[in-house]
Amino acid sequence: MPQPSERFHQAPAEDLADRFRRTRALTENLLAPLSEADATIQSMDDASPAKWHAAHTTWFWETFLLRDHVPGYRLFDERWPFLFNSYYEAEGERIARGQRGLVTRPTLADALDWRAHVNAAMEPLLDDPRVAELVALGIAHEEQHIELLLTDIKHAFFKNPLGPAMWDKGETHTAKQGEGWISHPGGIARVGHQASGFAFDNEGPVHRVLLEPFALSRRLVTNGEWVQFIADGGYSDHRLWLSDAWAWVQRRGVAAPLYWRDGEHFTHAGWQERDADAPVCHISFFEADAFATWAGARLPSEFEWEAVARGQDAPDNASRFAADAGNQLDAACPPLPVGTPELFGDVWQFTRSAYLPYPRFQPVEGAVGEYNGKFMAGQWVLKGASCATVRGHSRPSYRNFFYSQQRWQFTGLRLAKDN
Amino acid sequence: MPQPSERFHQAPAEDLADRFRRTRALTENLLAPLSEADATIQSMDDASPAKWHAAHTTWFWETFLLRDHVPGYRLFDERWPFLFNSYYEAEGERIARGQRGLVTRPTLADALDWRAHVNAAMEPLLDDPRVAELVALGIAHEEQHIELLLTDIKHAFFKNPLGPAMWDKGETHTAKQGEGWISHPGGIARVGHQASGFAFDNEGPVHRVLLEPFALSRRLVTNGEWVQFIADGGYSDHRLWLSDAWAWVQRRGVAAPLYWRDGEHFTHAGWQERDADAPVCHISFFEADAFATWAGARLPSEFEWEAVARGQDAPDNASRFAADAGNQLDAACPPLPVGTPELFGDVWQFTRSAYLPYPRFQPVEGAVGEYNGKFMAGQWVLKGASCATVRGHSRPSYRNFFYSQQRWQFTGLRLAKDN
Amino acid sequence: MPQPSERFHQAPAEDLADRFRRTRALTENLLAPLSEADATIQSMDDASPAKWHAAHTTWFWETFLLRDHVPGYRLFDERWPFLFNSYYEAEGERIARGQRGLVTRPTLADALDWRAHVNAAMEPLLDDPRVAELVALGIAHEEQHIELLLTDIKHAFFKNPLGPAMWDKGETHTAKQGEGWISHPGGIARVGHQASGFAFDNEGPVHRVLLEPFALSRRLVTNGEWVQFIADGGYSDHRLWLSDAWAWVQRRGVAAPLYWRDGEHFTHAGWQERDADAPVCHISFFEADAFATWAGARLPSEFEWEAVARGQDAPDNASRFAADAGNQLDAACPPLPVGTPELFGDVWQFTRSAYLPYPRFQPVEGAVGEYNGKFMAGQWVLKGASCATVRGHSRPSYRNFFYSQQRWQFTGLRLAKDN
Amino acid sequence: MPQPSERFHQAPAEDLADRFRRTRALTENLLAPLSEADATIQSMDDASPAKWHAAHTTWFWETFLLRDHVPGYRLFDERWPFLFNSYYEAEGERIARGQRGLVTRPTLADALDWRAHVNAAMEPLLDDPRVAELVALGIAHEEQHIELLLTDIKHAFFKNPLGPAMWDKGETHTAKQGEGWISHPGGIARVGHQASGFAFDNEGPVHRVLLEPFALSRRLVTNGEWVQFIADGGYSDHRLWLSDAWAWVQRRGVAAPLYWRDGEHFTHAGWQERDADAPVCHISFFEADAFATWAGARLPSEFEWEAVARGQDAPDNASRFAADAGNQLDAACPPLPVGTPELFGDVWQFTRSAYLPYPRFQPVEGAVGEYNGKFMAGQWVLKGASCATVRGHSRPSYRNFFYSQQRWQFTGLRLAKDN
Repeated sequence: MPQPSERFHQAPAEDLADRFRRTRALTENLLAPLSEADATIQSMDDASPAKWHAAHTTWFWETFLLRDHVPGYRLFDERWPFLFNSYYEAEGERIARGQRGLVTRPTLADALDWRAHVNAAMEPLLDDPRVAELVALGIAHEEQHIELLLTDIKHAFFKNPLGPAMWDKGETHTAKQGEGWISHPGGIARVGHQASGFAFDNEGPVHRVLLEPFALSRRLVTNGEWVQFIADGGYSDHRLWLSDAWAWVQRRGVAAPLYWRDGEHFTHAGWQERDADAPVCHISFFEADAFATWAGARLPSEFEWEAVARGQDAPDNASRFAADAGNQLDAACPPLPVGTPELFGDVWQFTRSAYLPYPRFQPVEGAVGEYNGKFMAGQWVLKGASCATVRGHSRPSYRNFFYSQQRWQFTGLRLAKDN
Repeated sequence: MPQPSERFHQAPAEDLADRFRRTRALTENLLAPLSEADATIQSMDDASPAKWHAAHTTWFWETFLLRDHVPGYRLFDERWPFLFNSYYEAEGERIARGQRGLVTRPTLADALDWRAHVNAAMEPLLDDPRVAELVALGIAHEEQHIELLLTDIKHAFFKNPLGPAMWDKGETHTAKQGEGWISHPGGIARVGHQASGFAFDNEGPVHRVLLEPFALSRRLVTNGEWVQFIADGGYSDHRLWLSDAWAWVQRRGVAAPLYWRDGEHFTHAGWQERDADAPVCHISFFEADAFATWAGARLPSEFEWEAVARGQDAPDNASRFAADAGNQLDAACPPLPVGTPELFGDVWQFTRSAYLPYPRFQPVEGAVGEYNGKFMAGQWVLKGASCATVRGHSRPSYRNFFYSQQRWQFTGLRLAKDN
Repeated sequence: MPQPSERFHQAPAEDLADRFRRTRALTENLLAPLSEADATIQSMDDASPAKWHAAHTTWFWETFLLRDHVPGYRLFDERWPFLFNSYYEAEGERIARGQRGLVTRPTLADALDWRAHVNAAMEPLLDDPRVAELVALGIAHEEQHIELLLTDIKHAFFKNPLGPAMWDKGETHTAKQGEGWISHPGGIARVGHQASGFAFDNEGPVHRVLLEPFALSRRLVTNGEWVQFIADGGYSDHRLWLSDAWAWVQRRGVAAPLYWRDGEHFTHAGWQERDADAPVCHISFFEADAFATWAGARLPSEFEWEAVARGQDAPDNASRFAADAGNQLDAACPPLPVGTPELFGDVWQFTRSAYLPYPRFQPVEGAVGEYNGKFMAGQWVLKGASCATVRGHSRPSYRNFFYSQQRWQFTGLRLAKDN
Repeated sequence: MPQPSERFHQAPAEDLADRFRRTRALTENLLAPLSEADATIQSMDDASPAKWHAAHTTWFWETFLLRDHVPGYRLFDERWPFLFNSYYEAEGERIARGQRGLVTRPTLADALDWRAHVNAAMEPLLDDPRVAELVALGIAHEEQHIELLLTDIKHAFFKNPLGPAMWDKGETHTAKQGEGWISHPGGIARVGHQASGFAFDNEGPVHRVLLEPFALSRRLVTNGEWVQFIADGGYSDHRLWLSDAWAWVQRRGVAAPLYWRDGEHFTHAGWQERDADAPVCHISFFEADAFATWAGARLPSEFEWEAVARGQDAPDNASRFAADAGNQLDAACPPLPVGTPELFGDVWQFTRSAYLPYPRFQPVEGAVGEYNGKFMAGQWVLKGASCATVRGHSRPSYRNFFYSQQRWQFTGLRLAKDN
């Protein structure tokens, strides 16, 4: 098996057309190590088959760009939107979510043919300023599905008692994390997407929030600290847990992060020894909150996190999102944690903020308006990015979101405290 | 059957001891129209038997006041805490929530004996300043269970195909609601409990929030408007609904507020004709949000609501909570909606605010600390008060909370909009 | 509390009218120790409230006798058939089975008024030969519900953590069981109801079956033997269990008969010490079959059991069903096991026979035809009678039936083996 | 796509070794039209992946023949028994049944390598008389899995909204069925396997049963008759259905056989027009029983069926199982129904007999003893054979068995009546 780092080194993104081609190619590269069967199965309702991701992203381009903006374009196959629409009610009926793993036909080869067809058909649109915003959305959309493809296939392999690997374990070089706390004086902060460049609708409108003085840890919580939490009886002390969290822990017998067994954890390279210094990963909001309580700290709000991230923006994230762009993705994560001491990378970080609309938020009209707004109930905002996030995808205003008990994503935590 | 208004007219609360006696008596008065069987059954997991409310509130007094603060006090029956602890993990194991309706022994008479015993034992403590705060908490706690007793027995009677009545229909006199909008200029507002007097821990600490200009409707949304929403296809237009809400509507076949059938709704006085001008009631957050979207408005945040309520505080709520105190409770609600044009009363009002801790919030130590904080995940804040809320129980900083799909409480909505 | 034996001593049944009056009175006597709440709750879907049994049996008389055979009879309350029809599809819609415990109105007093009304209205019919068969059916039906009332209230009390008692523990006098085996030479046996007197439709037609030589134990398996089975790892040895049984044991963590804890079992007199010599009770078919396998024996077929019972018929059961009739029911069972060495009594005995129609079986026309035939799938035949069976109710051809995992009835086993 | 009839024409079975080779090859032939993904997915808990069938049958040979009877044999892969043991508790833990579709590794190619390895290793054993009985069992076992492979992949393709085909529709030539009834005088019949040759343990011991005079239809019930049943309101008339059946129909909204839509049914060749004269297929016991009631007839007992089949044995089934053996399997069923007028073929036929042990039945010792006996609860006996049954697999004493509501097998019915 080749090293993932050999597969995903690519030139930096220059323009939209390049980014389109590079993103499409990345999806296809990630399918390469998978068998037809690997790419087809669905290991749980929350996850989707790799082939489905490849096809759904193609459906997105075909539907919202080609069908809607290329006169006379004919669908590659009229029966496939039913199979590969995810949740866009305005686009009609679709296969039940839990049945995605039963679609063995069209085959993986069929899906790749569709991709090639759509890639070619997209070329004339890539320089068309009238659809530039939609193209940027489509790229961001496919980048999200690249991360999901990685987390979903990881879960599928984990469910196999043999614990197969998607690729060999690369050289791991956990970068040393920072120490101590970043203090913030509080006050009125402007939050939301305010730079040029693409952002999702849920990152706006820009607005002001009032912050109390606080501090944010320079470090992500590590596996080693989590072992201490467990040793201290963290999973059996009801006082640390929210009420729904405690019910979840009891009912499901939760006693460690997902993918842990003994001193190992499950990775894209199969079962591997855990590094005590690496950021803890695959925890739920419920666990993150309990840990923070145990540690005498708390989770940051999304606004606190953003305020700090924005302050650090110029040098740090620039290097991260530009100079580092040769490696589009730390694909072998977590065996290859990026380990920068900065806010972005390694794991998505739970906040204590519910995922809600910003003041004056309005979803756009039509099916694309279903992208973010309709999920604004019952979920939590996560900030940062993970080792499975495509380089350049995240930013300080980025709002990822998941439910309280989900943990198959690359999720961890960074502590905050009041000052 | 006597009129409820004849039963609950009582003298205004002068001091803590009086309030204790009055509150305890109110619980007992509400049990009077119930048969032993009525008081024992549990109609769903969310609801509890009336007898259980009577006993649980007594357990609260016996545990946190008598046991902890009266040297040598012996429990009335050592086996009963297992039956009547609600969710206080620090107080040990307890009967599964869904099994509360199987406790036919102790009988209702036993529970009333316990109440009398505890009432008498409490007398020496009622003037003791060292436990005054706990007594105030106990009163507030029992007031909450009075409202739950009313909503739970309503649900139980509703589940009976014969639709029995708890009391006769009183004279209804829906007060005319206000018209138009209350504008607020935005800016920095201080929120949280800042007056003297009792408040729950979740109402603090006082802190500042930054508000954008907005307006709050002077009116609660009415039954008549809800009928228009239905007629306009509100329950079948996916565009109005959050994603989880739409799944809920589809799965459960929701097509109207709880307790509606044809032109009637179910009340404590049995099935009654609906008043088009009365505030709509027994809707979920999901429905409230969809209605607001349909109406081209939105739900207020809890802070917006509080800022307006605070501005109106002096004259209006004073009259409400003092002058009106002769009637401790509009017990026959909704047949007897209080219908003031003010913010409080008739129905609890959903906000768009997730129920989360305020900055620097810390639950108190021990079992009483489980009162509010551990529920801060996945629920929504409701403001105001309902016709089933004991007079004097609510206030501008009060934060009620329920899950997105719950609707057996007296819940409605008041629209807000951006200015 | 009076001794049950003082309550149920009654004169022997002379004729149908007497049996009607005696059976109706017995139901009412059994309600006497119950509070209104006891009589109203439903502890699981398989069980029904005591009040429901009292009302349902009354509905049966009112529907199939009074309504159908008394010109001009008007229903006591037209809304009640919806509440108290059990499963007769031909009689229309009815309340969902799991909701029977929510019917607090009509009250227990209402139900007793209904009983009195129907009892009086029935008097003119009791000597009418045209409905004699239906009256006999109604009596047998009410006798069955008397047994169910006893087993259902036992389960309800068991679910109460306090384990209340329905009456005091009587004097127990476990009669000595017989020893050894009753051999049968096999051959052609005539089975099915062939005497005069009432029988259910499922006991016929009489037909011949061919039996191989076999032997039936003179003894019911005892608590003491079951303790040995447990000690020998019976519940954890997959080889003893049918496949579905093993899944049930694993999923539910079954490790003892229902109602066992340490050296005690739950009875109508509360938690009591277990008698090692008393017949084991409250086991499922799955457990009975596993025990028989462990014991190197097997369950008898229903025909084997009947062939032996029929041979013993003349003296033994006669005494049982005639001389012993002063005591209509061993109501305090199992504290008061009847303990005869004969086939009938103490516990219903599982057979290895699926509950299926006899050759040429035809259910009768109309709603009454739903009595037995429609349950002929997936259940097992049980023979004999239990301490909760009304005297005179059973007979050699009687076919009781339950599902593989049910065990809240008074169910035990008697071993058989091939000769 | 080639015609299935071109693929499976093979020479008649001469001896055990030939049958072994032929059966193993048949499994492999059936995998040929499947993609790796087709062979891997699991469409419901009742079904298994095609690859799993290929591997499980290999596990059976490796475990019970090679491991147990070839000194020094080393398992092909020690981790695989966990994946491919079906239900043999004595062989240790195994993957949960519902997770079989998540095993993408070993791949299909790996499984075929295993097959080749085991096929070669088996050669020396094929002529060894000491294991001849086990070899015959292994062949019968693999023949059963061939039928399951066909029914399971049919279900998987059916769940794909595109309805893919496994092969082209062959020429259909529904043979004309017989007319009228075969009368049987009743009396004592010997049933159970009494010829030479292999039989499963559940077909014995041979024993006598007493039959009443009856008649068995010469015809299987057809699609055309089923359409009449539907048109006559068969699925909405509670009087025709057993109680559990009616609950199933209501809860699941059952209104036609599985795989029907409009005038079509789903086949291995995709959606095809239904032939009114072809036997109805893919019905449950519940439906078979309701139809028989509607038709004024009943299902035969397994003994009635066997008695008739045995009488016809000499000429008819001989031709069927010998002369016809060139075509091992009517693989394209039901487009290619074999359509003989005899008892075997086309569809398995539900009986009214519960699947229970014959008198003196004893399972053999060890894991192989788990083959049949432990399923003797809650299922029904089916007789005959289907178009998916390997030629020579069935016989008059053969007892297939399924649960009341299962219908993904090729199941139909033949009516019986009393004479």
